[in-house]
Amino acid sequence: MRVFEIQENFGLENLKMSDRGKPKPGPGQAVVAVRAVSLNYRDLMMIRGHYNPRQPLPLIPCSDGVGEVVALGEGVTRLEVGQRVAGAFSQSWIGGPPDAGKLKMTLGGPIDGMLAEEICLDAEGLVPVPEYLSDTEASCLPCAALTAWSALVEQGNVGPGDRVLVLGSGGVSVFALQIARMLGAEVIATSSSEEKRSRLEELGAAATINYAQTPKWSKEVRRLTGGRGVDHVVEVGGSGTLEESLRSVRTGGAVSVIGVLSGISSPLNIIPILMQHLRLQGILVGSREGFEHMNRAFEMHRIRPVIDRVFGFEESVEAFRYFERGSHLGKVCISLVD
Amino acid sequence: MRVFEIQENFGLENLKMSDRGKPKPGPGQAVVAVRAVSLNYRDLMMIRGHYNPRQPLPLIPCSDGVGEVVALGEGVTRLEVGQRVAGAFSQSWIGGPPDAGKLKMTLGGPIDGMLAEEICLDAEGLVPVPEYLSDTEASCLPCAALTAWSALVEQGNVGPGDRVLVLGSGGVSVFALQIARMLGAEVIATSSSEEKRSRLEELGAAATINYAQTPKWSKEVRRLTGGRGVDHVVEVGGSGTLEESLRSVRTGGAVSVIGVLSGISSPLNIIPILMQHLRLQGILVGSREGFEHMNRAFEMHRIRPVIDRVFGFEESVEAFRYFERGSHLGKVCISLVD
Amino acid sequence: MRVFEIQENFGLENLKMSDRGKPKPGPGQAVVAVRAVSLNYRDLMMIRGHYNPRQPLPLIPCSDGVGEVVALGEGVTRLEVGQRVAGAFSQSWIGGPPDAGKLKMTLGGPIDGMLAEEICLDAEGLVPVPEYLSDTEASCLPCAALTAWSALVEQGNVGPGDRVLVLGSGGVSVFALQIARMLGAEVIATSSSEEKRSRLEELGAAATINYAQTPKWSKEVRRLTGGRGVDHVVEVGGSGTLEESLRSVRTGGAVSVIGVLSGISSPLNIIPILMQHLRLQGILVGSREGFEHMNRAFEMHRIRPVIDRVFGFEESVEAFRYFERGSHLGKVCISLVD
Amino acid sequence: MRVFEIQENFGLENLKMSDRGKPKPGPGQAVVAVRAVSLNYRDLMMIRGHYNPRQPLPLIPCSDGVGEVVALGEGVTRLEVGQRVAGAFSQSWIGGPPDAGKLKMTLGGPIDGMLAEEICLDAEGLVPVPEYLSDTEASCLPCAALTAWSALVEQGNVGPGDRVLVLGSGGVSVFALQIARMLGAEVIATSSSEEKRSRLEELGAAATINYAQTPKWSKEVRRLTGGRGVDHVVEVGGSGTLEESLRSVRTGGAVSVIGVLSGISSPLNIIPILMQHLRLQGILVGSREGFEHMNRAFEMHRIRPVIDRVFGFEESVEAFRYFERGSHLGKVCISLVD
Repeated sequence: MRVFEIQENFGLENLKMSDRGKPKPGPGQAVVAVRAVSLNYRDLMMIRGHYNPRQPLPLIPCSDGVGEVVALGEGVTRLEVGQRVAGAFSQSWIGGPPDAGKLKMTLGGPIDGMLAEEICLDAEGLVPVPEYLSDTEASCLPCAALTAWSALVEQGNVGPGDRVLVLGSGGVSVFALQIARMLGAEVIATSSSEEKRSRLEELGAAATINYAQTPKWSKEVRRLTGGRGVDHVVEVGGSGTLEESLRSVRTGGAVSVIGVLSGISSPLNIIPILMQHLRLQGILVGSREGFEHMNRAFEMHRIRPVIDRVFGFEESVEAFRYFERGSHLGKVCISLVD
Repeated sequence: MRVFEIQENFGLENLKMSDRGKPKPGPGQAVVAVRAVSLNYRDLMMIRGHYNPRQPLPLIPCSDGVGEVVALGEGVTRLEVGQRVAGAFSQSWIGGPPDAGKLKMTLGGPIDGMLAEEICLDAEGLVPVPEYLSDTEASCLPCAALTAWSALVEQGNVGPGDRVLVLGSGGVSVFALQIARMLGAEVIATSSSEEKRSRLEELGAAATINYAQTPKWSKEVRRLTGGRGVDHVVEVGGSGTLEESLRSVRTGGAVSVIGVLSGISSPLNIIPILMQHLRLQGILVGSREGFEHMNRAFEMHRIRPVIDRVFGFEESVEAFRYFERGSHLGKVCISLVD
Repeated sequence: MRVFEIQENFGLENLKMSDRGKPKPGPGQAVVAVRAVSLNYRDLMMIRGHYNPRQPLPLIPCSDGVGEVVALGEGVTRLEVGQRVAGAFSQSWIGGPPDAGKLKMTLGGPIDGMLAEEICLDAEGLVPVPEYLSDTEASCLPCAALTAWSALVEQGNVGPGDRVLVLGSGGVSVFALQIARMLGAEVIATSSSEEKRSRLEELGAAATINYAQTPKWSKEVRRLTGGRGVDHVVEVGGSGTLEESLRSVRTGGAVSVIGVLSGISSPLNIIPILMQHLRLQGILVGSREGFEHMNRAFEMHRIRPVIDRVFGFEESVEAFRYFERGSHLGKVCISLVD
Repeated sequence: MRVFEIQENFGLENLKMSDRGKPKPGPGQAVVAVRAVSLNYRDLMMIRGHYNPRQPLPLIPCSDGVGEVVALGEGVTRLEVGQRVAGAFSQSWIGGPPDAGKLKMTLGGPIDGMLAEEICLDAEGLVPVPEYLSDTEASCLPCAALTAWSALVEQGNVGPGDRVLVLGSGGVSVFALQIARMLGAEVIATSSSEEKRSRLEELGAAATINYAQTPKWSKEVRRLTGGRGVDHVVEVGGSGTLEESLRSVRTGGAVSVIGVLSGISSPLNIIPILMQHLRLQGILVGSREGFEHMNRAFEMHRIRPVIDRVFGFEESVEAFRYFERGSHLGKVCISLVD
């Protein structure tokens, strides 16, 4: 079967198609014929060697994908052949609060990911996905949607009357917008493009801010909230945006740290955290039970993941080239079946 | 009646004794004859003008004190003359989660504090203190003890089986040690002095680390916890210690940010927050209901605040001079009655 | 000013119009000119002497009403003359978890309620209501809406993907339906009337059950939820419906006990509570902060209370006669201004 | 290998020793050589056919036991041969909140339990136990200790300043006493024997009540708590004691329903639940992660289970005869190694 793997050295130029033997399921395992994959910024960092420079190669990248169960190992009762499933990002985080053991075995590094025609995983690490979704739509759930869900629901306790700030229009941010709306909250979104601002408003944002034109966007957030600030920020930018995020949140509010798009280290003034009783919560995706809970919610609300563009399997490198340009809104996907 | 006030300009040299008229209680208010005051680092920052450079002067400093109710305004049913009470740090934070309004009116700046023979406050902002405590002991509760309580109990949910790291031997840290023990947790404490290390161990610390000899103390914390890290850090140091604190805490653990002794801004690598699913929680003291809850716990366990030294009222400036040297373990107090 | 009061003896026949002197606000108090009142089953029980047979008379009944601030006592900064406010059911439950003191002073018994042209209350016990609501609509919030809110939000943590069962079409149940929808949950409602079933479906119920035709309605609830049961029941019926409610809820789910319409004591089999890890939570309305939080949510979602019928002030006894027949859907109100 | 099984019909007279073939571990499984078993009231109900009359026979009873791993199936990395482990009561409840699936497969019915020389279980359903405990002590943890832990810690959030009421001196109640003390709470215990009262006080109860002499013991609980009531009741009695328990708890407090020793159905007045905002929480033991968390706490505090008497394996029926007399304090155990 064909896979894409990072060979010998990091870098997108080393992401190459290759052949591996068909996997056979051991006891407790299942083989999934992958139908669609979606890209996350983490996958790109992994390919570039920025996520974990000590990651052994070759590695099949991509944590997020969906496929059909085609073979089951001995003793598996949880799944059936023919079921459509996604891989859980943290293969051994079933439920409960996270710990080091639960966050260790994650798809797309350190263990091989979904950018392959077939993948063999523990049955416990696979999650049936809602039927109303297309394959590409379902492929967006494991990381991007679940991260937004964990931030707003599991950690954030966001609900009606709350205001949520989402940064930009990447995968997690668009899911955060959709999930916050489903929770009954109001959303303010930032974007550098007027076209994307319109799209975000169509998707339900109550207000949008052009952060290119308004680099001190926290002032605009304060203005839009009558000086109060938002209740929750889904912070994807990292050190480059954190100070503005901390200025945007109300006293007693929370910032979910879910990404580092704009940097990993910069001087941080911690006074607002203390003086405004703020909470910063790092979010590393979420548990399988969180995934299942989210699926029930998505099914009830028929939430449709926003897909920017779909590439073919052979075009996987182009898909990443397109993704790294950062002009997309929502998810960039790869289809293995169309 | 005599007060100490910061006159004309900030700076300890401008903290001077002065006379003010005896306060009369308005409707809903109570006058308290102050019996003891305890010092917090915040008071020193306030005097120096570092806490809020726009604070109008003169200001009577000190948030923490205890005294006897000597007069009640119309309509007060909550208190009786003769009762011994402390002032609540946030005068209008009765209970529930914090918001901007609740954190606004705090004792010792922006509103006048306790370093006075008498103080007039809303009856709602006063809290009866446990009888088993001496006046100086009781004067330590409002800020230092409640901050530690809020961090470990209200926000931290610390309990048996948990390990807590406290930094240094200042007022909050010693209370955090005592409270963590009462909660059934194990404590690791840091100090730069061998003498203080012994004292912290006497007070119940399971292990101590000399941070002067071991500047990368997070490694020692990891070693002491079998590589796992502690469940909770009570972080008083601010930007100067935050990175080591983040390295000391286990995956999924929490850091309570309660002080900025060593700095307010420095480069912070946010990757551990994200990758280890950490929580940073700013703690601005706590609510009156939290104070009352803590008092019930202290009473049940007969917790005795650790007092380093007691000065007379006339020696208030010397008390602050001693305090700013930083050699104390536990609280520095001022007695108005001995 | 005119009031209705229960005179000499309990019973609706003793609810009579009377004259009392105009109230003057003491320190910290406010006088409110009442504009609308809404009826709750508790008010009827109070009038009949079933709620508290030892309640001293005369008593002005009715906990729920809205009016305009017309006079302020000394020291009130929280309100302004001209503001439209509702009374908080528990006058001294500001926020945080309940305790005996907070639940003691409730409107409409033991202290005089809102069925009067004017009422004088502590300013702390009054809550500004959203502008988009009419007076009668706003009069429905204090008890009925807040009870549903406390059950589903504060205690229930209900959200998208959850299923909620509401019993009947009284005030609390209709609010519970509306709030559950705002939270992203799906609702099953019961009713004995086909007409009401239609109306409940118009209001957003995903399914309804005629409990007169289906006395063992828990079976139908199980069927509608694929055997799983609902996540949460808002139980208004008391002992007459509790067993069916316990059979309707999923393993690990919750039943909010908010009323006793059908009885206060009957044999209860406690095995399901134990074997299915269920939670029964008594809900006695809620706190002022809960009320304020709910108002922000209602304002964001423009929730409109469902009003069955509005009577004039002179028709107050007829209003209660109509109310006790139990044929209403939503709230029965009394207007003092139309 | 030898087992005890309920043969053909329910009843202690049908609990008989029998021979079964040595188990072999399938993929993901482990075989444990049982070293000690402890008895729970549930086991007795199971044997009598009162727990689940439709339970297929033969059945090996007893959920609680500890032993040594003697063989591992393919793919097990979680355990090692030679490790001392206990079985988790709910074999598939790893962590997170309970659901029907997680509570289905429980030891000692419906699936075979520990009263056997060997048992073969999924490796995921086994938990290493603290080394400081003897085999019989460790055999007490899975049901009795974990139920008390779940009630007080996971559901109860009990801590310093709280008062806890435990009923009687059975296994769960004595663990509840010990755990409440470890959490910093004060304990009131009931017993019908003066001798047991002394023993409960030695174990740390602040006060005890003879419920035989004081059948309305809630009054005594109120008196002992200054009229306030306790914060939490660990209710093992079921319908026979629930009303007194509800009268013993403070407004806003909680009752953990963990057993039905004195009956399963009796008239219950639900008014206190409503009027005092009480919470009733059914507790069906707990999760494997809860077990592991408890083990860390026990290890830190060197909690020693209280053992009443130890029988030999051949004396298993006598052990149950002794147990059903109800005169024990703490746990009745069976040792397979002494």
